[in-house]
Amino acid sequence: MATDILKAFKPLFYPRSLAVIGASSDTTKFGNIILSALLEIGFEGQIYPVNTEGGEINGLKTYRSLEEIHGEVDFAVLTIPAPAVKSSLEECLRKGVRGVEILTSGFRETGTPEGRQLEEEIARFARRGIRILGPNCFGVYCPESGLTILPGQNFSRETGPVGFLSQSGGLCADLGQIAKGLGIRFSKMVSYGNGCDVAAGDLLEYFFADPKTRIIAGYLEGVDDGPRFLKILRENKGKKPVILWKAGLTETGSRAVMSHTGSLSGAAEVWSSGLKQAGVVQAGSAEEMIDVLYAFLYLPPNAGPRVALLGGGGAIGVAASDSLDRLGLSVPVLSPPILEKLRAVFPPVGNSLKNPVDLGNPMIPPPMLRKVMEAAGEDERIDTLIVIQILFYILYQVRHRLRMDHQPLSQFSFQPELLKTCREIREKYQKAIILVLPDIVTDGKMIDLEIEWRRERDHYQAAGFPVFKTLDRAAQALSHFVKYHQRLRAEGPSTSFAEA
Amino acid sequence: MATDILKAFKPLFYPRSLAVIGASSDTTKFGNIILSALLEIGFEGQIYPVNTEGGEINGLKTYRSLEEIHGEVDFAVLTIPAPAVKSSLEECLRKGVRGVEILTSGFRETGTPEGRQLEEEIARFARRGIRILGPNCFGVYCPESGLTILPGQNFSRETGPVGFLSQSGGLCADLGQIAKGLGIRFSKMVSYGNGCDVAAGDLLEYFFADPKTRIIAGYLEGVDDGPRFLKILRENKGKKPVILWKAGLTETGSRAVMSHTGSLSGAAEVWSSGLKQAGVVQAGSAEEMIDVLYAFLYLPPNAGPRVALLGGGGAIGVAASDSLDRLGLSVPVLSPPILEKLRAVFPPVGNSLKNPVDLGNPMIPPPMLRKVMEAAGEDERIDTLIVIQILFYILYQVRHRLRMDHQPLSQFSFQPELLKTCREIREKYQKAIILVLPDIVTDGKMIDLEIEWRRERDHYQAAGFPVFKTLDRAAQALSHFVKYHQRLRAEGPSTSFAEA
Repeated sequence: MATDILKAFKPLFYPRSLAVIGASSDTTKFGNIILSALLEIGFEGQIYPVNTEGGEINGLKTYRSLEEIHGEVDFAVLTIPAPAVKSSLEECLRKGVRGVEILTSGFRETGTPEGRQLEEEIARFARRGIRILGPNCFGVYCPESGLTILPGQNFSRETGPVGFLSQSGGLCADLGQIAKGLGIRFSKMVSYGNGCDVAAGDLLEYFFADPKTRIIAGYLEGVDDGPRFLKILRENKGKKPVILWKAGLTETGSRAVMSHTGSLSGAAEVWSSGLKQAGVVQAGSAEEMIDVLYAFLYLPPNAGPRVALLGGGGAIGVAASDSLDRLGLSVPVLSPPILEKLRAVFPPVGNSLKNPVDLGNPMIPPPMLRKVMEAAGEDERIDTLIVIQILFYILYQVRHRLRMDHQPLSQFSFQPELLKTCREIREKYQKAIILVLPDIVTDGKMIDLEIEWRRERDHYQAAGFPVFKTLDRAAQALSHFVKYHQRLRAEGPSTSFAEA
Repeated sequence: MATDILKAFKPLFYPRSLAVIGASSDTTKFGNIILSALLEIGFEGQIYPVNTEGGEINGLKTYRSLEEIHGEVDFAVLTIPAPAVKSSLEECLRKGVRGVEILTSGFRETGTPEGRQLEEEIARFARRGIRILGPNCFGVYCPESGLTILPGQNFSRETGPVGFLSQSGGLCADLGQIAKGLGIRFSKMVSYGNGCDVAAGDLLEYFFADPKTRIIAGYLEGVDDGPRFLKILRENKGKKPVILWKAGLTETGSRAVMSHTGSLSGAAEVWSSGLKQAGVVQAGSAEEMIDVLYAFLYLPPNAGPRVALLGGGGAIGVAASDSLDRLGLSVPVLSPPILEKLRAVFPPVGNSLKNPVDLGNPMIPPPMLRKVMEAAGEDERIDTLIVIQILFYILYQVRHRLRMDHQPLSQFSFQPELLKTCREIREKYQKAIILVLPDIVTDGKMIDLEIEWRRERDHYQAAGFPVFKTLDRAAQALSHFVKYHQRLRAEGPSTSFAEA
């Protein structure tokens, strides 16, 4: 069964050749944007532009019809007006095309009887042996084969563990860019729009079966067959983490969904309890979804709820304590023998050692921070270390004190030494370490700080440590991660997991 | 009464001369950092470094004691060890110093009986005619007189309408930097730490009386005299907006507060209902507090709850609709005649016109966006326009399509034309306009986008339009702003306001 679905979707994700039907030399048209994107990202198969006018587009010979193409065509990208889609699908069937993505809009989402009917008609083609993505979508991104969505010409060619499904193409376009900086890489990303044939349920099944996908995430507006969708999730519970953002759960949102993809979004309570039973991590916004995905990519499975907050400053410790408490995480007082050791090193005045550990100054040099991290690492009461470094404070102050205001900030960074410490503590105590580097200063004159922030973030990330911009976001992501694993352990491996 | 408090606090905010007691030439010591900061920001009065060793620090003659100084000393900054503070305060009284800030820690916040006693002893000095800020604080920032907190050497010298009080010095240090990019300017900012004499209630009274302060914001951990504090707020209700972030309202947070400023944080319900009755806008995090403050600075009082969402893309419209609905704001369908007009201009396929208005493409050129903004401006069902521009999408795509990937992004910006449109629509319809420019791409190679984001943000801000990084944050800030004004109108002007 798993191999069936992998086989069925192969033409969509790994076509050997594809046709862009409606290819255009007008750079403002989808027919040019998608063709250019495929060329630029470096699709590895054969690309055939198709346009009734023939000639040449982007340096490629352009065919007047599919028939004119001599070789086989596995996959077709349709960017032609809605009324022309049906006859184009007929042509695809005749040519033996096995998968299409229809970028065109003007179907169910218009809310008109004509639009709905047209969509029903094209959906019928799927029963005749062709799989359809869309209409009203941005298509497929598969870095392994070099397929990309609209526009997506500069998406990463590195492949990764995340399978992403989305009713919104814009969100895919955004996520592909956001992902680059965060080191999030995809097995496949699919924008399926109105989902007249291939939709959420099928894509879930595919991702569960796909050996390249380890984590599944998605943005849903409505699901046509909700019971089937939830059944698939329940049957595969525990196999791979699933993170979903279900939008349109308010009255206003539900109306917006109807105009966007013509879907019925459903009742909030039904969705929430259904997804919970199915073990899905539920996100409430794009930011939250991405943060959770990020946590699943960077945190070790033993990242637990008992947190040591190290560094930062007083207010950040108080705020963090509030946040963690509200999210069901704890900030335990360090064990008496550990506290004793710390007290022997740090004077009582100006230092709060209990946890949060605040050394009275946000500018804690790495050797001091190492002592605190050792203590938290050693302490059996602690599962997870959150290290807070107020970068702008540290960098500007260190540089300024040294009267070197014109030197690059990277020279004053604690990162090389702190990163080394993080690695050593992780090695020694096998505990999760999260970095929080607040990135909140947006003065145009301080762009060097943003450059340095990204540089440091990249170093920590490359070593496998997640970096968050605020404590609240780190806490929220950790909380989702911890709860997911707690549920999994509480319920034991699911049947599907045991069978696998 | 109002003039009394202005007079009483004058030496704290507008001293003609000040002494830094504990001045140091060691650039890692507070005694050097604060002295340098005052010199660099350009304090306009006389500065006297005081250190028992005499000599010269930062090019200034250094006095061995206050007595040695010939002129009058209005204000003293104490950065000496805790045990020396009492005798230094005696010396201040003898010299006629009328206000001090004590940066030193080692008092109540240590949690020891000795610390508490020492704090009680220094608090008694206040009854002998000197006002005390701190201990365990970062002091006062007053751009008008050139006073600054620790470190704060590069805070803005522009004065503004915000009076900020905070138990945390670190938060003041952060806010001073964050504020620069957001165009938030202060009348005064006060870090009062343990607040042994001057504390939250006094500062509130001062800010209500201070003609330079139009908006009051603050971060509280605990308030020693809660009933008095709430009474001051109630008596001044409606006079000036008050935005407070009360932290330490969870068990874990309350323990962190105790270690940080030695305060009792109090029960969440009591605070929440007390502040609500007093008409205070309650924020739950630093980010929320700053966003609300920002909204109060940039939004006109008639910014209302009925929002038109313009531009962006489908998912952003759906997510925005959900957010606004949950926050008690609405996204009304545009009036039939207005919709008719729009339908005459935009084809039905690919465009959702009802509101959110999604023109099927995040890259809506300003002339098209103007038509939509005109419609929302004209429509009586709409109070507030939120214009969404996915900058990274627009800029990279426009530049890329024009095959000009090596030109600066600013050349491809819609901002000059869109800003002009925003001004004209505001002028014509007198409605609030909010910009949402998502700023979520953090790839190190795309720093040019961040530079352009800040440039555009600054232009909109300079013209009085608020710019948010995400729709959710814009919605949350607008919701607080709208509710504040709705309550104010429902309750009519308060007695205090009528008396004023």
